[in-house]
Amino acid sequence: MAGPAIPETRVLAIASHVVHGYVGNTMATFVMQSLGCEVSAINTVNFSNHTAYKQFKGRKTPAEEITELYQGLKQSRLNDFDVMLSGYISTAEAVEAVGKIGRDLKFEAGTKPGSFFWVLDPVMGDNGSLYVGEDVVPAYKNVIIQADMILPNQYEAELLSGVKITDVPSIVEAITVLHKTYFIPHVMITSLRLDSETGKVTSESQTLTVVGSTARKDQTPRLFKITIPALPLFFSGTGDMFAALLIPRFRAAITSASLTQTQRWQSPDSVPPTSLPLAHAATLVLASMQVVLRKTLDARDVEVAELEKREAQRKEPGDEEEAARMAKDRELARTKAAEVRVVRNVGDLREPGEVERFRAEELDATGENQVEGELQSEAGEAKPDELVVLKSEGAVHATSPE
Amino acid sequence: MAGPAIPETRVLAIASHVVHGYVGNTMATFVMQSLGCEVSAINTVNFSNHTAYKQFKGRKTPAEEITELYQGLKQSRLNDFDVMLSGYISTAEAVEAVGKIGRDLKFEAGTKPGSFFWVLDPVMGDNGSLYVGEDVVPAYKNVIIQADMILPNQYEAELLSGVKITDVPSIVEAITVLHKTYFIPHVMITSLRLDSETGKVTSESQTLTVVGSTARKDQTPRLFKITIPALPLFFSGTGDMFAALLIPRFRAAITSASLTQTQRWQSPDSVPPTSLPLAHAATLVLASMQVVLRKTLDARDVEVAELEKREAQRKEPGDEEEAARMAKDRELARTKAAEVRVVRNVGDLREPGEVERFRAEELDATGENQVEGELQSEAGEAKPDELVVLKSEGAVHATSPE
Repeated sequence: MAGPAIPETRVLAIASHVVHGYVGNTMATFVMQSLGCEVSAINTVNFSNHTAYKQFKGRKTPAEEITELYQGLKQSRLNDFDVMLSGYISTAEAVEAVGKIGRDLKFEAGTKPGSFFWVLDPVMGDNGSLYVGEDVVPAYKNVIIQADMILPNQYEAELLSGVKITDVPSIVEAITVLHKTYFIPHVMITSLRLDSETGKVTSESQTLTVVGSTARKDQTPRLFKITIPALPLFFSGTGDMFAALLIPRFRAAITSASLTQTQRWQSPDSVPPTSLPLAHAATLVLASMQVVLRKTLDARDVEVAELEKREAQRKEPGDEEEAARMAKDRELARTKAAEVRVVRNVGDLREPGEVERFRAEELDATGENQVEGELQSEAGEAKPDELVVLKSEGAVHATSPE
Repeated sequence: MAGPAIPETRVLAIASHVVHGYVGNTMATFVMQSLGCEVSAINTVNFSNHTAYKQFKGRKTPAEEITELYQGLKQSRLNDFDVMLSGYISTAEAVEAVGKIGRDLKFEAGTKPGSFFWVLDPVMGDNGSLYVGEDVVPAYKNVIIQADMILPNQYEAELLSGVKITDVPSIVEAITVLHKTYFIPHVMITSLRLDSETGKVTSESQTLTVVGSTARKDQTPRLFKITIPALPLFFSGTGDMFAALLIPRFRAAITSASLTQTQRWQSPDSVPPTSLPLAHAATLVLASMQVVLRKTLDARDVEVAELEKREAQRKEPGDEEEAARMAKDRELARTKAAEVRVVRNVGDLREPGEVERFRAEELDATGENQVEGELQSEAGEAKPDELVVLKSEGAVHATSPE
């Protein structure tokens, strides 16, 4: 497998279950297992399918049932987890219940620094709108202080930090607030549409940027960014895929860096941003995701072409009702065609291929050198000494062009 | 991967979910995904752990919720399954609900022979005692007529056939009843303690025997057996592991035999027992299981040795209550140590290794030649022409010694 070897890792995964498709725990469990993790899954909902289909059936797991399942583990001494990954949680009460589980696991690990680590994906909404109740936001603000890493998208980072993200300085400000106000050592904002020339966040951007930081001792951020091409399609479950890949990769990276017994897996202040275990892990994660999503897109295009051929052979709808039904069927089939192909591409999860393309760069906190830096890196092929080399332990790392 | 390539297979898996450990869908989903299947899982219970721990928390999924989840799939056209695998179902009402799902999928596949196949593991009990309500038995008798393959253990085969299994002739009789009364084309009894010398079923036997049959057109059985060493430990979830491995292996075998568009994947009468796709598939399954269970046993022994070392260093219990608590903890830790190691041994699921050891032999229906036949096959190394060669399509197969 690419990257440093992944140590045996026991993960408690708390997220949604869908019968069909790949989101939440249905995505995360398989992805983490494929990288060798032992996964215990508490399902916060049991739905037939994810919400991109615009209809689904099933049930939310009540908060007390989440608590009860954890107590069931605890009474049989089955709660010796190295990592907890929490994803979609449907109500404020359930967020509180998961917060208590995190606190309990942290308490039990209290005497052994680094023996428990909570990765929290604060799933609340996207693109300016919530898909949970409004009371979930303050519930998360109460519990994230327990988390060791959070993985918000842009909107969630804004909700938690209170900072409107529009450009590089506001990204830096949001992450600084998350480090300093909530004492979260590791933060990654997972999907920023950051224009590389202007340094502004804009929906026009053809690339996606991930910005991560592991705080220094004084809670100041150590910022890196990784830019990836934006694919021309929306896929459900990519946030869950990112988190699920990150856990084994990050644990391998901190093991290589001898940080497993360090409080909250925090690197010494001497480690520069692009040499952070988090930067190394994110690079491997994004390389895997690009390949799998690209293959998904190709497979989806083939499937859609076949659909179109069949649809063209159908009779015209007889009335409005039939036309509406056919339009709905068309859309359902297209949503299905866009399900991420993880099972048949498991090799790409384990061996991410062109890791070199997804090098981490230092994010200039002022944003002032943004234009020059980006132009420089786009001017030609990356030079070998700029690359983050991830396949060996003695990593050569990039520093951002000054 | 060993054996014929596994075609893309969409499986609806209906069984239990446990947060910790590997039974039911928690076992079956990972195993089938590892062999390339797309798995949609409806969970019949959501428990913290399996019952071998003698305590657990969680909830059974009511029958109407199982039905509702399936309706959710159906309304979004997500029910285009090739195979259904049903395992543990906790109540008679839920068995009926699953029966209706099977019937609906069969009905939808009606115009395309072979396009849907139901593998039913009638999980009811073991070693003479039920672990479901008594009304589950007649509920299963009503639904198994819809199934294309059933995988009972000895006790379940007795419950369904009404035949007490004591020796080879009664095994044959039970399978004959299942073929003829319920029109089930494929039957495998998954765990018989059959003494190879006497042909009697006895708890003293040092081996386990799997007996399978694909009926001929006239519903008479075509019987084969595979004998494996019995490991000196009870593992939970091995029945689920068997079924989960069998589905991709059997589908690959029937694809090789060009039977995918044949009603109920039934081989022509000219195919002898040991050349059946079911026999080929079972051989690969058992070879994988032997390796993984052997590795599990070794890992468990290391873990138990460590536990014993730690326990020896503990103070003696102060009173009876503390002694009872310590005894319980010891037992819980040993149950945990015996969880099947599937995640870290995924390579052995895909590449089963010494397939030659698990050759299928024809089961002599009379049982009269049992002693002679077994002695002969145990007298020395297996001869090459006796082996079932599974890695090529032109299989050389054994016939039982006359």
